[in-house]
Amino acid sequence: MDIDDLLAGRTHQMEASAIREILHAASSPGVTSLAGGLPADDSFPLAIMDDLMTTVLRRYGGRALQYDASEGFEPLREALVPHLAARGVTTTAEGLVVFTGSQGVLDALGKVLVSPGETVAVEAPTYLGALQAFNPYEPRYAEVATDDDGLIPEALDAILARTRVKFVYLVPTFQNPTGRTLSLARRHQVAEILQRRDTLLVEDDPYSDLRYTGDPLPPIHSFAPEHVVYISTLSKTFAPGLRLGFCVAPAALRRWLVIARQGVDLHTSTLGQALAAEYISGGNLERQLPAILDLYRPRQQAMLDALERHLPEGFRWTRPEGGMFVWVQGPAGLDAEALNRLVLARGVAFVPGKYFFVNQEDGVSTLRMNFTAADPAAIDRAVGIIGDAISEGGSPRR
Amino acid sequence: MDIDDLLAGRTHQMEASAIREILHAASSPGVTSLAGGLPADDSFPLAIMDDLMTTVLRRYGGRALQYDASEGFEPLREALVPHLAARGVTTTAEGLVVFTGSQGVLDALGKVLVSPGETVAVEAPTYLGALQAFNPYEPRYAEVATDDDGLIPEALDAILARTRVKFVYLVPTFQNPTGRTLSLARRHQVAEILQRRDTLLVEDDPYSDLRYTGDPLPPIHSFAPEHVVYISTLSKTFAPGLRLGFCVAPAALRRWLVIARQGVDLHTSTLGQALAAEYISGGNLERQLPAILDLYRPRQQAMLDALERHLPEGFRWTRPEGGMFVWVQGPAGLDAEALNRLVLARGVAFVPGKYFFVNQEDGVSTLRMNFTAADPAAIDRAVGIIGDAISEGGSPRR
Repeated sequence: MDIDDLLAGRTHQMEASAIREILHAASSPGVTSLAGGLPADDSFPLAIMDDLMTTVLRRYGGRALQYDASEGFEPLREALVPHLAARGVTTTAEGLVVFTGSQGVLDALGKVLVSPGETVAVEAPTYLGALQAFNPYEPRYAEVATDDDGLIPEALDAILARTRVKFVYLVPTFQNPTGRTLSLARRHQVAEILQRRDTLLVEDDPYSDLRYTGDPLPPIHSFAPEHVVYISTLSKTFAPGLRLGFCVAPAALRRWLVIARQGVDLHTSTLGQALAAEYISGGNLERQLPAILDLYRPRQQAMLDALERHLPEGFRWTRPEGGMFVWVQGPAGLDAEALNRLVLARGVAFVPGKYFFVNQEDGVSTLRMNFTAADPAAIDRAVGIIGDAISEGGSPRR
Repeated sequence: MDIDDLLAGRTHQMEASAIREILHAASSPGVTSLAGGLPADDSFPLAIMDDLMTTVLRRYGGRALQYDASEGFEPLREALVPHLAARGVTTTAEGLVVFTGSQGVLDALGKVLVSPGETVAVEAPTYLGALQAFNPYEPRYAEVATDDDGLIPEALDAILARTRVKFVYLVPTFQNPTGRTLSLARRHQVAEILQRRDTLLVEDDPYSDLRYTGDPLPPIHSFAPEHVVYISTLSKTFAPGLRLGFCVAPAALRRWLVIARQGVDLHTSTLGQALAAEYISGGNLERQLPAILDLYRPRQQAMLDALERHLPEGFRWTRPEGGMFVWVQGPAGLDAEALNRLVLARGVAFVPGKYFFVNQEDGVSTLRMNFTAADPAAIDRAVGIIGDAISEGGSPRR
């Protein structure tokens, strides 16, 4: 039968982007990938998983395998409270909801809040997975300008002054794709704007625990909790394969998010949540995190050194204090997509930055470089190949 | 801030049904619940979970904790192929997609196929979770009449003759809520109608492995694979807490389901899928299933005996050969919701059947009774309390 003829109107908003193909090619054997956003396998607490399972089965028995509440597994919600308090997010177990990855929170927010044609404000560039979560609900996007200190508050305020925005979506710390962090002064400014304009912020914070240097900054949630949905995940500090994300949200919104997610997956894996509860409450996350930082710190340094060594003049890049990405801005006219095709033939992959812009033209000369999935030597070699490709042929240009 | 003011139009289609409250009350300590659809904790393979984990970690290492493909974990997809072949569902690993529970398939189908106001045909009564998955996409429903042999094919054909239907949703075997099974003759008829009317069927099959007596029937998928999305789950034969569902679908549709689900949760828990792969491929499911059937068979018999013993004249009920539910039809005028409130005060709960109808008025006198979560003695006692409540006060009437 003709399936195309059956598709809903919204489905055309979901057209598979070329980035699926890019990530697929990047995962081919023999390719050194700076493309994905994968934690290193070495960052996983493999050695304690057997013990965690034994503890979970002894403590919870059949409950760990049974249906559970849509709001989340109670012991995990309780374990997350002090974990979040240490980051400056004040909540109770009841105040947070566990989802199947932070992607699940983004989907539920789109579903509950966005009617077709309504506006969501995002950074330019922004996290692609958020656009993929929101797109089926057919929003318009307002792109907020950014600089090296992250989103520009005045630009946000100007948009809110002239447009009714359902919510603002923001990754303020070690942003994906740029690695940029919103300064403390700007966090205060954004909070003030949210309150003055009575606007909802979705603060997505997957990376703040991955800080290699410098001092932690308080989340925007801490300055305006009633105007912020705070989202985070255990994908970077435990294991992404378990698909464990969560949010802290105002009660009136939380209720709808729970109802929406019940129709999507009933609840998140009870076993996964129970393992995470024991991982956190048993102090394992605190013990594992320094090892993860020690693994990634030299990789990030290797990336920064390699960019310095191998890229010609006319390129600049971010120097984040944490996270998983460095953002490279090439000279005007560089076609990063053509460059990616060129180096892929030599066994190296990155993600052309244009995919992180709603208006892709704005990002034609940009590159997102991941440094967590390859070791320092491989990173140096891969960036060397990229540098050679640029220098040999002259920068590929459009 | 005023969250109600921010809600999308579709959100009002998701109003929390009273059934959430009913199931919540039914799960209170001291209540014997015939209300939920929970497998017994005793049906779970708790004794082998430690070993499964050890095997998974040894075989897959970090891969079991890492991000994975949106289509599903390859070893699980491969393990499901012979499992499904034994049921008469012919597919390849590539032909199936793993989701976060079969609920995830239902959500993706609604998202990809249903524009607001388009029609989905469902049985009357039908599975409530399907309505909860589809509702946010704002369909109209066409209710297809049913009798003791399940959906009436002529009624379906009449609807398809006059209405453009995006798809038909059907639980043909041991249906939730009625326990009814579509006869073999009707399966052939439905397949013929689908092909003649070029209409898509969503065949939801969570229960067919839970057969206590009689012979298996082939799925409708086996008669019209190009017109059927076949959905099933490991929630009844492994563990619902792992949230593992899957579908077999025509390639052109599968592609869109994968794109849609990527925006919802990226993929299903890799660890959960790896445990399931080892559970099935290691022969554990085949070993566990007879124990599950031996656990549930006497519970179902206890339910049927108790209904015979305790319900007054004027009540009739289904006698399914498997599944988790018996459906009770009370005399005209019985208010099953009032009855449920009455017996809840005495420590017993069931689900008033009206919640499984789009037009709830049609189900006012019906009751859904689960028999898998309580033991035979508790079932007899609980049905006795229901029978007493009916007899004492006369049936509560509206």
